[in-house]
Amino acid sequence: MTHTVDSTNTDSAPRSAPQGDEVEAIDSELDASARITKKPGGGADARRATTNDVVVARTDVEWLGRYLLGTWADVRIGARALTAKPEMQRIEGQSLEEHRERVFGQLKLLVENGQVHRAFPESIGGADDHGGNIAGFEELVLADPSLQIKSGVQWGLFGAAVLHLGTDYHHQTFLPAIMSLDVPGAFAMTETGHGSDVAAIGTTATYDEDAHEFVIHTPFRGAWKDYLGNAAVHGTAAVLFAQLITKNVNHGVHAFYVPLRDAVTGEFLPGVGGEDDGLKGGLNGIDNGRLHFDHVRIPRENLLNRYGDVAEDGTYSSPIASPGRRFFTMLGTLVQGRVSLDGASTAAAKVALTIAITYGNERRQFTAGSDTDEEVLLDYQLHQKRLMPKLATTYAASFAHEQLLTKFDQVFSGEADSDDDRQDLETLAAALKPLSTWHALETLQEAREACGGAGFLAENRLVGLRADLDIYATFEGDNHVLLQLVAKRLLSDYSRRFANADFGVLARYVVEQAADKTMNGSGLRSLAQTVADFGSTARSVGQLRDASAQRQLLTDRVETMVGEVAAKLRPAAKLSKKGAADLFNLHQSEIIEAARAHAELLQWEAFTEAVDGPTGQASGMDDGTRVVLTWLRDLFGLGLVEKHLAWYLMNGRLSPSRARAVGLYTERLSARLRPHAQDLVSAFGYGPEHVRAAIATGAERERQTEAREYYRAARAAGTLPAPEKKPARTR
Amino acid sequence: MTHTVDSTNTDSAPRSAPQGDEVEAIDSELDASARITKKPGGGADARRATTNDVVVARTDVEWLGRYLLGTWADVRIGARALTAKPEMQRIEGQSLEEHRERVFGQLKLLVENGQVHRAFPESIGGADDHGGNIAGFEELVLADPSLQIKSGVQWGLFGAAVLHLGTDYHHQTFLPAIMSLDVPGAFAMTETGHGSDVAAIGTTATYDEDAHEFVIHTPFRGAWKDYLGNAAVHGTAAVLFAQLITKNVNHGVHAFYVPLRDAVTGEFLPGVGGEDDGLKGGLNGIDNGRLHFDHVRIPRENLLNRYGDVAEDGTYSSPIASPGRRFFTMLGTLVQGRVSLDGASTAAAKVALTIAITYGNERRQFTAGSDTDEEVLLDYQLHQKRLMPKLATTYAASFAHEQLLTKFDQVFSGEADSDDDRQDLETLAAALKPLSTWHALETLQEAREACGGAGFLAENRLVGLRADLDIYATFEGDNHVLLQLVAKRLLSDYSRRFANADFGVLARYVVEQAADKTMNGSGLRSLAQTVADFGSTARSVGQLRDASAQRQLLTDRVETMVGEVAAKLRPAAKLSKKGAADLFNLHQSEIIEAARAHAELLQWEAFTEAVDGPTGQASGMDDGTRVVLTWLRDLFGLGLVEKHLAWYLMNGRLSPSRARAVGLYTERLSARLRPHAQDLVSAFGYGPEHVRAAIATGAERERQTEAREYYRAARAAGTLPAPEKKPARTR
Repeated sequence: MTHTVDSTNTDSAPRSAPQGDEVEAIDSELDASARITKKPGGGADARRATTNDVVVARTDVEWLGRYLLGTWADVRIGARALTAKPEMQRIEGQSLEEHRERVFGQLKLLVENGQVHRAFPESIGGADDHGGNIAGFEELVLADPSLQIKSGVQWGLFGAAVLHLGTDYHHQTFLPAIMSLDVPGAFAMTETGHGSDVAAIGTTATYDEDAHEFVIHTPFRGAWKDYLGNAAVHGTAAVLFAQLITKNVNHGVHAFYVPLRDAVTGEFLPGVGGEDDGLKGGLNGIDNGRLHFDHVRIPRENLLNRYGDVAEDGTYSSPIASPGRRFFTMLGTLVQGRVSLDGASTAAAKVALTIAITYGNERRQFTAGSDTDEEVLLDYQLHQKRLMPKLATTYAASFAHEQLLTKFDQVFSGEADSDDDRQDLETLAAALKPLSTWHALETLQEAREACGGAGFLAENRLVGLRADLDIYATFEGDNHVLLQLVAKRLLSDYSRRFANADFGVLARYVVEQAADKTMNGSGLRSLAQTVADFGSTARSVGQLRDASAQRQLLTDRVETMVGEVAAKLRPAAKLSKKGAADLFNLHQSEIIEAARAHAELLQWEAFTEAVDGPTGQASGMDDGTRVVLTWLRDLFGLGLVEKHLAWYLMNGRLSPSRARAVGLYTERLSARLRPHAQDLVSAFGYGPEHVRAAIATGAERERQTEAREYYRAARAAGTLPAPEKKPARTR
Repeated sequence: MTHTVDSTNTDSAPRSAPQGDEVEAIDSELDASARITKKPGGGADARRATTNDVVVARTDVEWLGRYLLGTWADVRIGARALTAKPEMQRIEGQSLEEHRERVFGQLKLLVENGQVHRAFPESIGGADDHGGNIAGFEELVLADPSLQIKSGVQWGLFGAAVLHLGTDYHHQTFLPAIMSLDVPGAFAMTETGHGSDVAAIGTTATYDEDAHEFVIHTPFRGAWKDYLGNAAVHGTAAVLFAQLITKNVNHGVHAFYVPLRDAVTGEFLPGVGGEDDGLKGGLNGIDNGRLHFDHVRIPRENLLNRYGDVAEDGTYSSPIASPGRRFFTMLGTLVQGRVSLDGASTAAAKVALTIAITYGNERRQFTAGSDTDEEVLLDYQLHQKRLMPKLATTYAASFAHEQLLTKFDQVFSGEADSDDDRQDLETLAAALKPLSTWHALETLQEAREACGGAGFLAENRLVGLRADLDIYATFEGDNHVLLQLVAKRLLSDYSRRFANADFGVLARYVVEQAADKTMNGSGLRSLAQTVADFGSTARSVGQLRDASAQRQLLTDRVETMVGEVAAKLRPAAKLSKKGAADLFNLHQSEIIEAARAHAELLQWEAFTEAVDGPTGQASGMDDGTRVVLTWLRDLFGLGLVEKHLAWYLMNGRLSPSRARAVGLYTERLSARLRPHAQDLVSAFGYGPEHVRAAIATGAERERQTEAREYYRAARAAGTLPAPEKKPARTR
């Protein structure tokens, strides 16, 4: 199915009304952009090599849909078919208990369906398919986010910890029952007193040399394990993280396999206790709870000993000498949680926009330009401004996620799993997960408000998805903490590049160089000049639309911010620990902002790569689709510049007049993309069985048609009461 | 109770670490600001008249608490006592049915308690106390937002419509049973097809001259009444809005009293039908539903005929000749809904910050500057940046609400109820309600995330309040539609000022004048100059801190934006209806942004008035409290400038270097206010019985103390296992 829309005719913004030179200039520039032909890349050269063949902007929905499905298309299609089954879907309004039991039952269906074992070794019935496993898993969010997360707890955390932190004994002994759900389990890492700071947890596992056992103990209330899925009701075992102590030395956090409950009675085993976390803001299909341990003994062999072991006599050994590196290596094996949240959040944003854009295309409100016909909501500029940039960001997040998933698969399949690869993967996940989880919340909220009162009804799903996804912003790593990790990586890369130079000098150098590059580089030669003549808006704007100009603006910002922060933090090396911490704290916001800028750039690069298709994947893209996707990428890229416009102005990277053009440009791009909005959400590939929102079924269009027909017929029949005449003189 | 904190000692930002000239300059400026003595106003003069008497910044919590209670302090205190009773409070996790019944029961308790009749006339048992009525009503949000809104439906909408749109017959006939809740009723305005555009509703009320009856009819599905509280279950009558048709003329929307259900059986009366809206994203204690009517007949007398009447023979008459003005006059009587949402949202933001700041002051995470002690969350710069500006905005919204409520009381009591007064009230409500409802949602979300996983538990209330308040952004007038109303008022005021001049010329004139004023006015003489010498940051920043400079920056932005938009819309007068609508649409975002800027200015003015106390009310404010509140106001004002920094830069109102100082300044203000954060939320006056969040009870402090004591004792006893030695050589 291919919808063809000639953008030059259906642009929702009026051509007839006087618009001012600036708007006209931008519109001509956009018209010109549709003349980019054949040559992929869409940069300045391509435009200069213009012919007069006008490419009609249109979206090949079928092709784009397949393209978006990515590498693991078949797995995704299979998972979507599964989520289309009513028995896998959320029933709104169930009680806590009903919802928990339903989701637990759905987990059993997943097992029967063979959906959840892809990531496990072939030797025990898995498929060693890491990327495919995550791709299928994240699609479950559309059935019910509780199902996604509860299966993630069971197989992605509990099972994956046994797989990645344990060795052959553990795989043979524990994995079969985990895979089959005979042993539902908790992932007991977080404590009431410690969330993101896992290294500081209080629970201890002390080795008893005489008994050859570990003694698991909770020393104080803050060390209770907390917020654990499967802990309140269903879990009969846990992978528990505790400080490993042997021979009176604390070797840091390690993971242990710990039985929790009697499988028959469901009663806690001796020494184990706990509490139900009760009702939550969402995800109530999951039985989160608290656990505590009073000198609970487990066999020595229950230490998941891949990265650290204790011999019978209590001697500790590890293949990784550095305790710090060992800790991060262990945590690194669990990165898939972050990867899958990135994908699931993006899927939720896609559904939110499918709902809001479908409704916005059918719902009418207020007569503006006519005496009788009300306007469709999406024809209002503000409505476009609220939804179109979110659509662009969703595409960016989707393409960026595909890259993350590919990287993840390469590392976990062993195809490319050097230390550097693992660190790159962790940094990429830490950068993208915050952006996509926040984006999903913002998009769900904007969609909810854009649908008015209808958006508030559970039957339209936006509120339920938002409630469930709320916690995605702070679990599997608080978003701000993750961005701080990214920033530390950026700073250490930066310092490695200039290892032997004086930082202050270097930072100035880099800033100057970046500024120089920006102002004198080929793409942005005159960016910092004041464009006094507004007649030149078209040309200045054309430069901004170049992919290379966008890249330079976004890259320059990251590099400059990192360089500035590095220079400011340089004195820390000579300060006390307290002084250094204070200095770091004084610049914490800047540090995190630099990381965010880096993550945005990653999304932009992924989008650009997807449009340009250097991998050849995009080779089937027709020219019309490329025009639409390029506009969408431009909206994303210039939207980022607009969001950070004050920075570009303060740092002399954009002149005031050019900065004004940025905002006008994103507005016109939104208007230009408006006729393609429905196609662009159709390409997400979610059918009514996935969207399941009463207002996105065409019902609103039927209601509007019926209403308009009623008035039309009454006017035709002369039965419509006349409006009251206005009085001759109103005050 | 007065907490005294010497800000010069406890500023959380380090003095010892190197901070750079800019930070030092700002800190000195802030030190100097604490030397403002005696003289209220805190402007440049006061500072120049500095003595060496240092005023210790501190908050007189008791005084400030009383001050915040405002004019209707006694009513608020009474209402808070009522919301402290468990039987009035929400029970989390109830089913839809249980919750609905509970809230309906609570409405009866309100009646018994005499809480809900203040706004009704003394002649029928009320108190004619309009401001007090709203003040008490909005406090109910802390018991359960469903209780607030359901009582709002019954007495603030259904009852108020009978009161304000009806005449003596209706007051005598219907009000007693409404007041006593013997007749629970719906306010049947919104339709499935029409939310904010009330004028276009489809339901008709056609006068039958023979029967002396109105015939209420729903002509098509889109004209079903929708989202109506009390419609799904409890309502036995409704005030229904419909197009009044008599003698084949449509006189526009009027209100009718329409019986819905048999009071005994609860069954719909003949011709009436409906549906349950079912589960919603929040407010599930209210039975929202849909209604439709099939030629339902009501007596002629059931027309609420204050602003429009139909004689027995079908002749229509109205005291207001213009149909448009009549319509807006009728709707205007219902402004109290918006007023009360403004107050309730602000109350919810106060509780959210009480929870997040209390927890942020107790919760520790990560050791930064120490080997053993973890940092309190609120000592992190980012945590301050996330919460302190929200605290400042909450104060601004609170003071602005007090002004709105006062204006409302003056109009409705008849003390000052000219047409201009009513229009001012409506504009003020339309400006403030969007800002405060969005602010509440953002604050609840930021508080939720700042509390991590604990914030997601229902027991900590943030998620529940957010879910309930979500709809506040779009009901009683969609926020964007309200801002558009404000903008139209700003534009019409503007055009009235220059009624006979050519707009294009004038707009340019105004812009130039504003720019001139900004750049050459006394307070901001050198604002637009490049401050090349960073040593002057202190002085340039000192100017920004002047109340008059903030006012000028904020006012200038509103005036410039309005002037620019007016000039751009000027050609509309000469265009077709379609052309004019298109032109308006092309600038819709700017129009709404101008309205938002105006509303922010109103909040800032209210805050400033409250600090300066020109009314004398603030006369009891001690100097220490004034220093703290002035910092808080500065954080709000400069926060607004920071938020719109790109505008100030693009329009030459701030130089790049001064713009940089703004961001640094708000950061330092947040740090400076950090030691006062707990006092500032204490002054909101909500006790544990109102806050009811497990994490804000001091439980976290106990847990942290226990954990630290455990480690301290173990270290002292030498029983704490030693950390693993780092290897001699790590890779």
